[in-house]
Parts: sequence; C-alpha cells; structure tokens
Amino acid sequence: MKRVGLVGVTGYTGMELARILLGHPGMRLTQVTSRKEAGKRLAENYPFLQGTELSDLMITAPDTSFLAANCDLVFLAVPHCTAMEMAAELRAKGARVVDLSADFRLRSKDVYESWYKVEHTRPDLLPEAVYGLPELYADRIAGASLVANPGCYPTSAILALYPALKAGLISPEDLVVDSKSGTTGAGRKAGVGTLFCEVSDTFRAYNLTKHRHTPEIEQELGLAVGREIRLSFNTHLVPMNRGILTTSYAKLAAGVDLDRVRDTYIGFYAGKPWVRILPAGVLPETRWVRGTNFCDIGLVTDDRTGRLITVSAIDNLCRGASGQAVANANLMLGLDLSTGLSQAAMMP
Amino acid sequence: MKRVGLVGVTGYTGMELARILLGHPGMRLTQVTSRKEAGKRLAENYPFLQGTELSDLMITAPDTSFLAANCDLVFLAVPHCTAMEMAAELRAKGARVVDLSADFRLRSKDVYESWYKVEHTRPDLLPEAVYGLPELYADRIAGASLVANPGCYPTSAILALYPALKAGLISPEDLVVDSKSGTTGAGRKAGVGTLFCEVSDTFRAYNLTKHRHTPEIEQELGLAVGREIRLSFNTHLVPMNRGILTTSYAKLAAGVDLDRVRDTYIGFYAGKPWVRILPAGVLPETRWVRGTNFCDIGLVTDDRTGRLITVSAIDNLCRGASGQAVANANLMLGLDLSTGLSQAAMMP
Amino acid sequence: MKRVGLVGVTGYTGMELARILLGHPGMRLTQVTSRKEAGKRLAENYPFLQGTELSDLMITAPDTSFLAANCDLVFLAVPHCTAMEMAAELRAKGARVVDLSADFRLRSKDVYESWYKVEHTRPDLLPEAVYGLPELYADRIAGASLVANPGCYPTSAILALYPALKAGLISPEDLVVDSKSGTTGAGRKAGVGTLFCEVSDTFRAYNLTKHRHTPEIEQELGLAVGREIRLSFNTHLVPMNRGILTTSYAKLAAGVDLDRVRDTYIGFYAGKPWVRILPAGVLPETRWVRGTNFCDIGLVTDDRTGRLITVSAIDNLCRGASGQAVANANLMLGLDLSTGLSQAAMMP
Amino acid sequence: MKRVGLVGVTGYTGMELARILLGHPGMRLTQVTSRKEAGKRLAENYPFLQGTELSDLMITAPDTSFLAANCDLVFLAVPHCTAMEMAAELRAKGARVVDLSADFRLRSKDVYESWYKVEHTRPDLLPEAVYGLPELYADRIAGASLVANPGCYPTSAILALYPALKAGLISPEDLVVDSKSGTTGAGRKAGVGTLFCEVSDTFRAYNLTKHRHTPEIEQELGLAVGREIRLSFNTHLVPMNRGILTTSYAKLAAGVDLDRVRDTYIGFYAGKPWVRILPAGVLPETRWVRGTNFCDIGLVTDDRTGRLITVSAIDNLCRGASGQAVANANLMLGLDLSTGLSQAAMMP
Repeated sequence: MKRVGLVGVTGYTGMELARILLGHPGMRLTQVTSRKEAGKRLAENYPFLQGTELSDLMITAPDTSFLAANCDLVFLAVPHCTAMEMAAELRAKGARVVDLSADFRLRSKDVYESWYKVEHTRPDLLPEAVYGLPELYADRIAGASLVANPGCYPTSAILALYPALKAGLISPEDLVVDSKSGTTGAGRKAGVGTLFCEVSDTFRAYNLTKHRHTPEIEQELGLAVGREIRLSFNTHLVPMNRGILTTSYAKLAAGVDLDRVRDTYIGFYAGKPWVRILPAGVLPETRWVRGTNFCDIGLVTDDRTGRLITVSAIDNLCRGASGQAVANANLMLGLDLSTGLSQAAMMP
Repeated sequence: MKRVGLVGVTGYTGMELARILLGHPGMRLTQVTSRKEAGKRLAENYPFLQGTELSDLMITAPDTSFLAANCDLVFLAVPHCTAMEMAAELRAKGARVVDLSADFRLRSKDVYESWYKVEHTRPDLLPEAVYGLPELYADRIAGASLVANPGCYPTSAILALYPALKAGLISPEDLVVDSKSGTTGAGRKAGVGTLFCEVSDTFRAYNLTKHRHTPEIEQELGLAVGREIRLSFNTHLVPMNRGILTTSYAKLAAGVDLDRVRDTYIGFYAGKPWVRILPAGVLPETRWVRGTNFCDIGLVTDDRTGRLITVSAIDNLCRGASGQAVANANLMLGLDLSTGLSQAAMMP
Repeated sequence: MKRVGLVGVTGYTGMELARILLGHPGMRLTQVTSRKEAGKRLAENYPFLQGTELSDLMITAPDTSFLAANCDLVFLAVPHCTAMEMAAELRAKGARVVDLSADFRLRSKDVYESWYKVEHTRPDLLPEAVYGLPELYADRIAGASLVANPGCYPTSAILALYPALKAGLISPEDLVVDSKSGTTGAGRKAGVGTLFCEVSDTFRAYNLTKHRHTPEIEQELGLAVGREIRLSFNTHLVPMNRGILTTSYAKLAAGVDLDRVRDTYIGFYAGKPWVRILPAGVLPETRWVRGTNFCDIGLVTDDRTGRLITVSAIDNLCRGASGQAVANANLMLGLDLSTGLSQAAMMP
Repeated sequence: MKRVGLVGVTGYTGMELARILLGHPGMRLTQVTSRKEAGKRLAENYPFLQGTELSDLMITAPDTSFLAANCDLVFLAVPHCTAMEMAAELRAKGARVVDLSADFRLRSKDVYESWYKVEHTRPDLLPEAVYGLPELYADRIAGASLVANPGCYPTSAILALYPALKAGLISPEDLVVDSKSGTTGAGRKAGVGTLFCEVSDTFRAYNLTKHRHTPEIEQELGLAVGREIRLSFNTHLVPMNRGILTTSYAKLAAGVDLDRVRDTYIGFYAGKPWVRILPAGVLPETRWVRGTNFCDIGLVTDDRTGRLITVSAIDNLCRGASGQAVANANLMLGLDLSTGLSQAAMMP
C-alpha cells in the first residue's frame, strides 16, 4: 500500500481526490494539508467523509520535509505559483509529485509568462516535467518524478482533436474550440459571481480569447502536427456542478468522410480504456461520465460546410483534475493505470 | 383596445403570450383555443393566471371563422404544418396572422421541404409573408397581414452577425454559430428526454448539422451580403428554463479592429430599443434579458486568430417567440413597437 | 409622480425594488445609494437595466438629509441595526420610511434583543412603526410614516394561519411551521455556503429552532387569538432562486371540516387581491407567484390525524420583500394598493 | 461470484442497481429484463455503461423460469401489482427475491388495499416477506427468501424516529413528518409534470395526507412502541435529482434533554455502519449521502416548544431503493452487509 499526501485539501480538486482515494486498493491518503484548516479532522471539514477510514485523518499545515519523508508521492492541489515553489522543494527532497496546477504544463517559460502574467521561477524543472495525459504519454509518465496534470478544458479538447490532426484528416488552421463547463471549474472560493443565484437558470461566456488553457491546447495539438497552431478557444459557464462539454469545429481535408474519421479515432484509442468513441449518431452528455475518468467523443461530419465537428465530454473534477491525477500516480507508482478508477458514472 | 386570439394555448409559447398580453394596454386576449383543453377556464389550465383578468377566459376548440370574425389579429402557436393550413384559412377569411411556427419563414418552398421533410402545401402565401424581425423589417411588418415570427435561435444569430456582414467587416465564409438554449425550447410535451432528471446537472449537444433553424439563419444573413451563405450552426441544451446564448466565430476582414466593429453595431442598432451593444469587455448573460425582448450583444476581437467573436443573448420564449410576436402585432395593429413590452428583466 | 429613494441597492432586495419601480406609474426612483458602488451609473452595476430609464441613475453614498429633502419616501434595504439608526435619522428629518429590515417588526424591545442578540437603540420609534402586511393593516399603513416591512417567511406563515386562528378553527397549541426558501433569501454576499456548487442538487435544513423570524410569526398569530403563542418554525434551503413554500400543521377544533375552513379563508380574504385560496385539491407551486405579490394558499384537512395542513407560497423577493414594500409605499403615498404591481407571474 | 437478475432495468432504480452492481465483488448481474427494450445491449440503453463489463449484457424479456434457474437472487424493479405476481412466480420456482415495490412491505392485506386501492392477490406471501431495513431486521433478512425493500421516504423517517420512540423519549402522538424528495423519486416515465421546465426553479407539495408511504412508516414505528400510530406524513418535490430530507417533529417526554437523546441514538446505531448521528449542531445535507447507503441524522431539541426535531437525509435511489436492495441481497447471499457498498458520496 503506497502512502500519498495531498497538499491543499479544501478546494474541489482536493475534495475529489479524497473521494477517489477512499476506495483505492493500492494507495492510501496519509497526509492532507491546509494552512487554514490545520488541526481539524478531515470529517470535520468534509462531513461526507464521516464514518469512513479517512474520517479521523488530521489536517496539518504543509511541511515539505515531512511530506517527502513520509509519502511515496505527493499531490499538489494549490494555486499556480504556489505549486511551482512547493514542487521544487518536494523534488529537492526526493518526493515524486503530481502537480494539479498549470505551473509545469507549458514547455516554454515565455509562453507561460505571457498567459499567466507572472514570472516562472522554476524553469529548471520544466524539462523533467511530463504532461500527464495518459493516452499520449503513458510511458513517460511511468518514469517521471514530476507530472504536470493537464487542465480540464485541454483534456477535453486535446483528446477530441489529436487523432484527426495527427492523421491529417483536418486542417490545423481554422480550429474553433467552444467549451462549456460546470461551475466546480470556478473553484471553491467565496465570491459573488459564483453564488447559486448568480449562476442558476442563466448561461454566460467568460474570458473570451484570454483563457489560460489556450496555450496548453495549442502546445499539444501543435505537437500532433509538428508545427505551431493558433486556435480560437472560448469558455462558457453551465449551471451544473460537474462536467465539460467541448464542441470543436475543423475543416476536413479533401476526401475524408465520417467512416474514415471514425476508423482513425477508434484505432488511435484502441487499448485506451477511458476514451469512448460513441456510436455514429450518438452525442455525449456530461452526466454519462460523471465521477469517472471517461472522455466520451461524438464525431459528426458536415458535408454542407466541409467540417468535422467533435463533441467531447469529461468530468472536469475527475478526468479533468483529480481522477487523472490518480491515474498518473498509478503509473508513477507502478500500478495499473485504472487501479481504483473503475466506478460507473453517477446517473442521474 | 384590439381583440386578439391565440390558437394553441397549452405550450410554452402560448403560456408566455398569455403572460405578456395580460398587461398589454392596447391588446386584449379574447379567444384562446386548444382542442385538448377546450371547455376549461384559462386559470384552470394555468393556475398562475388566477385572480387576473384572464382567469375566466374560456378555452375553446379552434374555429377559424369565429376567430377571423371576432379578432383583429390571431397568433398561431401550433406546430409547423398545422400552422400552414390554419394560416391559410384565417387569411382567406380576412384575419391578420402572426405565425409562430416555421411555415412561412423560408422564402423558398424547396429549402423548406428539404429541411423539414414535409411538403409545403401553401406556397402561394410565401410571397406575402414577412419575416418578423423588427430591427430589419419594421416597415414591411407594419403593412403585413401574415408575419412569420422568427425562430428563437435565428433571432439571436441574425442580430449578432447581420451588421458585420452587411458592412463587410467579416467574411461570409467560415462562419461558426454555436448556440446554447434553455429547455423551454424543447416544448411542453411529455417525453423522457426532457424530464428534469435527464436535463438537470448535465449538458449535451443535439441535432448537430441538422437543426432546422440553419436555413433561416443562412437566408437572412445571405440577404445581408447578397449571396448564398453556408455556415455551421449547432445547438446545445442548457439546464435552465429560458434563454439562448449564441457564440459566433467569424474571420475579420483585413484591418478591422474592435472600435470599428463596435461603431458599426452601435450605428446599425441606433434607434432600435431592444438591441443592447454591451460596453467593451462586458459579455451577456441570459438572465439579463429574462422575460424581455432585449437582445444583448457582446463583441470581442481576437488578434491572435483574426476573428470576431460575437456573443448574443435573448429570452427564447419572449424575444425568441411570444414577445417578438407581440412586437410584430403591435406594428401590424398600428401601435408603437414597444407597447406592453417594457418590463424589466426578472433578476435573478 | 412621487420621488422615492432606495438605500442599499446592491443586494437582491435592492435589485428587485429597482426592477419593480421601473414600470411603476406613480413612483419614480430618483435616488439609489450604496457606499461601495457610489459613483457608478445604475446600469454599470446592473447590466439588466441598460437601455431603461433607470440606466443612468447615479449611485451615491447615502445621505439622509439629501434623501429626506428630495424624496417623498425612502426604502431602506440595509441590514438590521444599520436600518435602525438610518430610519431614525430619516424620521427626524421628516422622511417617510419603509424599512425592509427586521428592526421595527417586533413590538417588544426585549423580544427583539433576545432573538437578534443586539441592543435595540431606537425603541422610541417602535410605537409608531406599523407592521406592513396589507391584508391585516392596510388602514394603519396608509397613515403611517414608518412601516416595518414583514419578513419573507412570516408573510407566508401569517397569511396561511391567521384566518383559522382568528376564527377558532384550529388550536394555537401544537403549531408546526415547516418552511422552504429559495436561495436569494440568503442574500447576495460572497460566501462558500451559498456558492452554486454548494446549493445545487442538494437540500438542507438550517437554523433549526433559532430562526429570527420565529418571534415575528408568533407576535402576529398571537394577536389573532389574543394570547401568546409558541410554535415550531423551521427553515430549509431549496436549490432555486426565488420562492418560499410553507407547510403548516395545526390541530383542528372539533367538528371543523374542509368546507368550513375554506369558507372562512375565502371570506377573510374577500377583497384582498393578492391572496388566492386555491381550489380544493390544488396545491401551490412557488413558480405560480414568481415575480408577483400573490400569496397562494392550499388548504387540506386530514381526518386520520385531525389536522389542518396549509401550504402557502410567495415570492420571497417580491411579496416577501420589495413588492410588499412597494405595496406599503403605495398606501402611504395615497396610491391604490396594486399600483405598478399587476405583472403576471414569470412562468416557467 | 453470485449471479443475480434484475427485472425492470429501464427505470431509475434499475439504472442505479446496474451502477452499483458494476463494481460489486461478490455479485454479478447476469440477467436484465425489460419488455420494451428486449434485444438491446445494456450500453445501447445506457450509454454511461459503455466500456464496462456490463456493456454487452443483452436485455431480455422477463422469464421467471429462466431467472429462477439461472440466478441466485432476483431483484424486482417493477411497479406494484406487477411485482406481486412476479414475486409469487419466482418464489414458486425457488428463486430468492428482493422486491423493490410496495407489494410486500405492509403486514396487513387490508391496510395495503385501503392505501393502494387495488386487491392484494398474493397475501399468502405476506407472512414470509421480511421488511428489508437492515438496522432493524438484519438477522431475519439473512434468512429470508422474499425481502420487501423499504420505501425511500419510510427509510428516512423510520430511522429518524425509531430509537426515540423505542426508548420512550418522545410521544407517539403528535408526530409530524415533513419530507422533501429529489425528482428521481417520481420515476422515469414521460409526463408533463416532471419535465425539467416544470420542476426547475420551483417547489411544491404533493399528495398531502394521501401518500402511500404513510402506512409503512406507521407500521414500523408502531412496532417500536407496541401500539398503533397515526401521524402526519407529507411530501414535497425538490428541484434536484437525488436525495430525501425528512424533518420530523415530536413531543419530548418530560425531562428528556438533548444529551439523553443523542446517547440513545448513538447507542441504538452502534455497530450499524450506515447511520451517522451527526455532531451536535450539524444538520445533514442530501449531497453528503449522494450515491451511498448512509442515512445521516441531525438531532435538535427545542426547549421553547418541548419538541425533538430530527432531520434525516438519504439518497432516495441508493439507500432508498437499489443500494438497500443490494445490502439485503448481501445478507441473503451470506455476504457482509457492506460488500460493494463502500463508495464515498459524490461531492459536490
């Protein structure tokens, strides 16, 4: 049984990590930290964990030395910038780290700084960090000591477009990625804008042209085609708790039809248990993946406009954050990718 | 006080029309029909109307002769095909008609039949029908006897793109219109797919590449540029009651910047009380227009990709159906466009 | 046209008051205040008011002298304690006041202090304050200079039980009042507990046995029977924006049947336009009163247990706060009770 | 590995049973039936099950002989009356049965018939049926061949009141049980009343004084005190998917305080892993038990009115139906009560 630590237990990703790890047969959560809630038992903070084996785990203030000494792996569920320094300390002390923040996702210090508007103080760690998308990088993740857990939106967008780009079925120009996310994506901090009465029964776009997940999507899709990509990525807030649905629009290469697209995707994801290419004519719903690591993809071609339209759905907290983090940890700790991650979706 | 009739009171658009007309100073609802609910008082069917002046209005079976003889104008809130025949009967008997169905929106019988998969049996009426979008056709509406009330999605898409296309600021190629609608758009008929537990806390796309509102958008935007347009129009279901938010992506013409776009839109909609071009940096939310005829438009340009992104929000039941129908009726009956339509949005 | 002021425009009750007053034919909102947002135009703060006649109204810091000099009446939508002092200042300067806070609702300084745990510093004003429930006190409200606008829950509970208690149809012992409220009732302040993701798709009770609206209900129902009443009043949070539904349980007096109960209620509320006694067998839904001043009441008797069960529904923001405040202002300013308050419910 | 069958896979309880059994280490779902969907693979009907081991399970028409011969136990998730006859057939053929309907919950044929308004055609089976509430009847369930799985509301009400009644802490007179349920409780059949737009953003009571779960609650609580009980049980519909919260009001016996109440409950449920008596001052939320078999209970005493108020929360689909059914099956098949039922709550 591996011992793992979680830095930052009070946000939704921390909460989700606790939920997932509760039933994990190969990993046990032995350290959870929060400056603010230190000294409480975990169940005091999260009553839903009462009566479980995590109920009495004490929340402590983060201590990288202690974490490094006592954990086989540490999850960082803290804001960017904070993560950067803490990952560096943990690495220096020999810990393996899965960082759920954005700090090590981008290969380029410059790109990071231009989108995040802060200095990247630990560019020395960028070369060793592995982008933790198991469908693309399972082998490298298994050997990594620092994994940059992908962003929620990028997970949905990259998995939806990568196979078509890689196979040259669509043009890397003219990509439009229109994403919609549940409200857990906004985090668990007090704020008027995400109050129930400000989100319920309404719908809005936000951060148009400026969302920080843009370069992450461009980086990975650029790697698929071996050149830089510029795409439109935009985001919307859905009055629901969990889930991202991403609708992507691309120009089909000449002569490509739906059958060829479907064959390509099915082939690309053969042996990858979590990407489900839906039957022709079926489009994904976020609830079908709720609480799971699945990414469901619907494929549609439009003869009138010559486009491929992909619709991809993930659970932003599970596949888009903590579930994927556990998958990465599984690989890093020599466990099977799916260990502890086989729950059915919570329906309805 | 003009007397108006409503054919088809049991759906959401019928319900909304009753709500709006209740406070209308120039029109009184004197006939409401429903085959199924005939014989009931209106408040028996709609308890929210108890204690109002519409409470005791009897629901009758539809009778076009009676309607034509006793109403200054008739609203048709019935399914397509049914509307076609009923409009023809009413017109033959001299009634003025606002048809909320799709039957007279498309100029071309062929286009109608290819998208709706039924025969258009009354193409003789197509030439006289006016597309009821007041910002574009107020004068013609005022003189019309048959107004085809626009679809909900097209209202949001056309108002968002028309000024830019008309002014040549964007290319008519490469348009992507990604729409999201509240669930009233699916109507008020029993069905498993729109049960609360099938819509709540989830998000999905539907009807990709096949939505029947596509040709309506293409028709009107084509008129803006004087040539045929083919665009990608796709729809999603939001777990909320009312509202449509449409995000549109277009290629900017060379040298066009945000200031020029904003000036064009502000100029185009000068004197049109219901289109609100939001301040730069502000994006619409569907709740800001809930229960109103406003169409709020946010404008964003993206230098990285050379795109104009428009975000437009309407209330699908009010501006997208019954409120716009009343606006059209106002014009047809010689009343001011805004009569009875000045309620503030229901917030929150 | 009367000029009215609103102190505290940034909360949900302030927002609702602006919405209602926008269409009011006898009152115009000429002053709105907020310390925090002073200097902004109203539409900057509330984009849903753009393009309306309130759009350019400047938000100012509150100044009781200016308000008293320039307004025929002032609405106070500020927290208790703050309201107390501000009402006193305004009264001293001659202004008529409708106070939406709890500060002048309770006749007894001691009762106020024991439930609110603060000192009541202006008990001198208690004798002149009138409890603003129009069905009970219309005449006194019309002559009042300081009206204590009732709480939302009490409005639903008092209207539901008063007639039966007054007529001796039920025992004043053994009353159980189980209330459920939409989340606007929690106000518009940042906090984790009312984030969308903490309220959506869940249900909880709160403040059991301690809700501060308890003494207000007991006071008014006690007046109905001429003696002190102690009842159980408890509250729950519903994942919806607006609305309160209150289910009350009472022991029927011997020999009282449903017909007698219904006759009593119908008689009691004869001539009161906003209380709708639903037909036998029909139970209220909060949406039927959304955005209105209606209080819908369903009456059920249970022979098995000898109980009268009442179910009452109001819109907590409109009838439970700002709509009722405008009704009170109407009476105080010599207008008809219903002036500007006849909108149909927003359905659905 | 035990083989189990499920009759009636298309409703929410069938769907939930499939979800739970997917990860069950001691039971495998080998037969699923539906007259309407026979011939489909399970994943065609439930896309969320794609890519799981249940994906290709064929739905068949129900055949009691085949089920009895090939299953160690059969779950019946069909309407009452249908269940009655099917259970009898299955029992006659030697199958062990967990019936999720109401048909065998009530000890008395007469009580059943007076509430359900149909004849009970298999009263011969009533003596052998065991009421499947593990906290009360674990031993008898373990030896039973026919278990009547409790209703959702009764599970929440009985667990909340049984210990206090058994110990004489409250009066069996004057009980008021006010329950609120998520909308899955209304089932998965097409109907206007449970459409998203008829449930969202509203709240209503239903079935007052007539809910069929009343006699079930009265039966079990009557057994706690050894005499007949008559109580008020009423139900409300919450705009959420899952969850029941039940608020119960009871008169405290003389001299009983909160400490004694808490000690009694904690003692009564010692060793029962799924009833969590929350810390003093903490009240349950339905989400804390989402997807689990927990029943969380908050206990409050009110000195002013001499009442005990209990608030209990369950997941109506899991603990209130399919999760409890699996727990009963565990006991009947010689497995540990909690086998396959230890998932953490889905939060948020």
